[in-house]
Amino acid sequence: MNFTDIIIKKRDGLKLTEDEIAFFVKGTSQGTIPDYQISALLMAICIKGLDDEETAVLTYEMAHSGKILDLSPIKGIKVDKHSTGGVADTTTLILAPLAASLGLPVIKMCGRGLGHTGGTLDKLEAIPGMRVELTAEQAFKQVNQSGIVIMGQTEDLAPADKVLYALRDVTGTVESIPLIAASIMSKKLAAGADAIVLDVKCGSGAFMKTPEDAEKLAKTMLAAGKKAGKKTAAFITDVNQPLGNYIGNSLEVIEAAEILKGNVDNDLKTVALALGSKMLVLGGIAENSQKGLEMLHKNIANGKGLEKFEELIHLQGGNPDVLKDYSLMGRAAESLEVKADKGGYVSEIDTYKIGKASVALGAGRLLKTDKIDYNAGIIMKKRLGDTVEKGEAIAVVFASDKNRCTAAADIIKNAVIAESTPANKKPLIVCEPE
Amino acid sequence: MNFTDIIIKKRDGLKLTEDEIAFFVKGTSQGTIPDYQISALLMAICIKGLDDEETAVLTYEMAHSGKILDLSPIKGIKVDKHSTGGVADTTTLILAPLAASLGLPVIKMCGRGLGHTGGTLDKLEAIPGMRVELTAEQAFKQVNQSGIVIMGQTEDLAPADKVLYALRDVTGTVESIPLIAASIMSKKLAAGADAIVLDVKCGSGAFMKTPEDAEKLAKTMLAAGKKAGKKTAAFITDVNQPLGNYIGNSLEVIEAAEILKGNVDNDLKTVALALGSKMLVLGGIAENSQKGLEMLHKNIANGKGLEKFEELIHLQGGNPDVLKDYSLMGRAAESLEVKADKGGYVSEIDTYKIGKASVALGAGRLLKTDKIDYNAGIIMKKRLGDTVEKGEAIAVVFASDKNRCTAAADIIKNAVIAESTPANKKPLIVCEPE
Repeated sequence: MNFTDIIIKKRDGLKLTEDEIAFFVKGTSQGTIPDYQISALLMAICIKGLDDEETAVLTYEMAHSGKILDLSPIKGIKVDKHSTGGVADTTTLILAPLAASLGLPVIKMCGRGLGHTGGTLDKLEAIPGMRVELTAEQAFKQVNQSGIVIMGQTEDLAPADKVLYALRDVTGTVESIPLIAASIMSKKLAAGADAIVLDVKCGSGAFMKTPEDAEKLAKTMLAAGKKAGKKTAAFITDVNQPLGNYIGNSLEVIEAAEILKGNVDNDLKTVALALGSKMLVLGGIAENSQKGLEMLHKNIANGKGLEKFEELIHLQGGNPDVLKDYSLMGRAAESLEVKADKGGYVSEIDTYKIGKASVALGAGRLLKTDKIDYNAGIIMKKRLGDTVEKGEAIAVVFASDKNRCTAAADIIKNAVIAESTPANKKPLIVCEPE
Repeated sequence: MNFTDIIIKKRDGLKLTEDEIAFFVKGTSQGTIPDYQISALLMAICIKGLDDEETAVLTYEMAHSGKILDLSPIKGIKVDKHSTGGVADTTTLILAPLAASLGLPVIKMCGRGLGHTGGTLDKLEAIPGMRVELTAEQAFKQVNQSGIVIMGQTEDLAPADKVLYALRDVTGTVESIPLIAASIMSKKLAAGADAIVLDVKCGSGAFMKTPEDAEKLAKTMLAAGKKAGKKTAAFITDVNQPLGNYIGNSLEVIEAAEILKGNVDNDLKTVALALGSKMLVLGGIAENSQKGLEMLHKNIANGKGLEKFEELIHLQGGNPDVLKDYSLMGRAAESLEVKADKGGYVSEIDTYKIGKASVALGAGRLLKTDKIDYNAGIIMKKRLGDTVEKGEAIAVVFASDKNRCTAAADIIKNAVIAESTPANKKPLIVCEPE
């Protein structure tokens, strides 16, 4: 097979065969196709696209470019969850303990934050003593014993994706729905779960700015999941403002705990429970989403979700008392109220900028090697549609020094816009594509 | 400047600025932009295109990626000529001596054959003793003395083109009109002539299969030439059959000599004189094309063109007697008549296949390092529209051994198709775009 011919075929908008896609992925992970040929094909795909069948084959081949995790030592139906990345999006810390408390085995492999979005591993590490790097054997044992583990990847899953992602990043080929879908779904397939619930973000803080693009991405991922024989479900959720009100690592642990305690009702809770109930349905625990929701609400009310979170923290070496006394996670040395320059109705919150402000405070990373300040972050005081008065606090920022606070406050002031008339409210859960 | 942003701009179909194109070309020739980024941009250009302005800037920057030859030591207006590559296309060996015999200073830098097309340097080297590798000083002296030199490139012209061409070849990005135009014109600009006549080939033996594409390419090159301040003219000529009837190195020298002697009137002569007369016009020797043609015809009739060819051969170390006694160039050991399987009207001659047959005989190269048999080749006996009888010779092939002859004969039989009714004749000179 001549790789140049494959590139030309896609350049001319033709459909690639299974064999051609397999040849591409094998050559990529084995290093037999040079980078300059891979990037030419990536650009051709980026412009000319892949249909659902091609994307499913690409996903499958990328998943099989490395080891597929064998989760069979864990009893029951394993349901994975993936979000395309938000700000103040702590759904995992809420839905994982709740679902586990209802009998769904939860083995959740997570990543770290990069750029304007946070990562679950970093949030957990805000809890003193918490271990997130476990072997597969340790993880299987913990899940079979307590029903829950949250951890980093045990294996180098879907190695072809690593090569492709690194190239896409520097060749202007990130913004391709089929390539994004294959990247996400190949890692999910390699992670070995039986079913997958997807949360596709849409709005100013997301890759997909429009509901149309988000729906296209969701449908492409659903098709790839189903082709691989996995039950797959997807939600499109709004990220035109941070999902929760707390941004930063220890701050997000606090907000998750408050929701598990039943003290808070907000958008973060709504999305976490919607995803959680869908996981219960796919896992055969709940008959339908409505029943699933009721079960989740019940285990908030009776404290079983919070208990499971405490158990998780304890089993992974952390101090579960942090959920009772948040100050055990430490506190930022400095804080600053961000005050509105102008009154009116909050009409826009640029989520990307808020994420950037959080990085500026030290809560996130620009480079993979950057260190994180677990106690840095933002508490948002206003949401879209809220009224605000001139001089009123729209947020409070936390950091280790005053300069960081001032810099972040400036970004936030620019990110939050007030107008004299209220804007139309957008739905939080945009739709559930099939 | 971030190169990924430039790639993304072109991926999205936006126009690149002069600075961005200059950054690209400098990074390419200096090796500071990695191949995988260059190839991503090449693919984006291949699919999204470049407008005439972008192409002109690209051409200029590529020309200036190396040294621009300074032809000022040569007196008079220097007119260059370029053909996009044909089969049995010996126009240079006809028009160069003729134009020089009329007072146009001719410094013609040529290439070698590769793939199915021949190269003027190889043809000249079929003449025993002929030197084609000259220094600029030797060349300038010879032109000022006798008005003519035909030689290889003295410098590594337009080095960015070398990098880009090598990458395009393996990344499916050869077939891009702006990239083809910039590649050709950058080398022409670097070669330093004052004016340029282009012969854009169109048909089965050419890159451009349709008159529309050929015209697009011609117009793009014209625009790039004019932007660079060079008088530029172009012809689109048909290559749905070999231009002359003799294919192969010594054979093409013979056909050129026969035309200069006034013994032959054929398509090769027509195209050579059309290009030659345009060169005379751009060089200020002839008032218009009609006058130019008359002058060329006169210098065939009075033998001055042939004399100039003899002088050229003599000055570059060759034996000019070859033009009187062709056998001084040697003869192929074997020959074979290719006979028609079927009678009728010749309706199709696949020029690409005829070129391939010539390579099979040993007259051309598949790899740059292949050796050439100067006496191998083909004499075509039939042209489009001719009647042919079953068993009649359609061609004679020449090679060093019988196997090569048989292999080439099979290719030619497949390349020449006869039908019961005559096809419409296509014009030889399709048009002269401006």
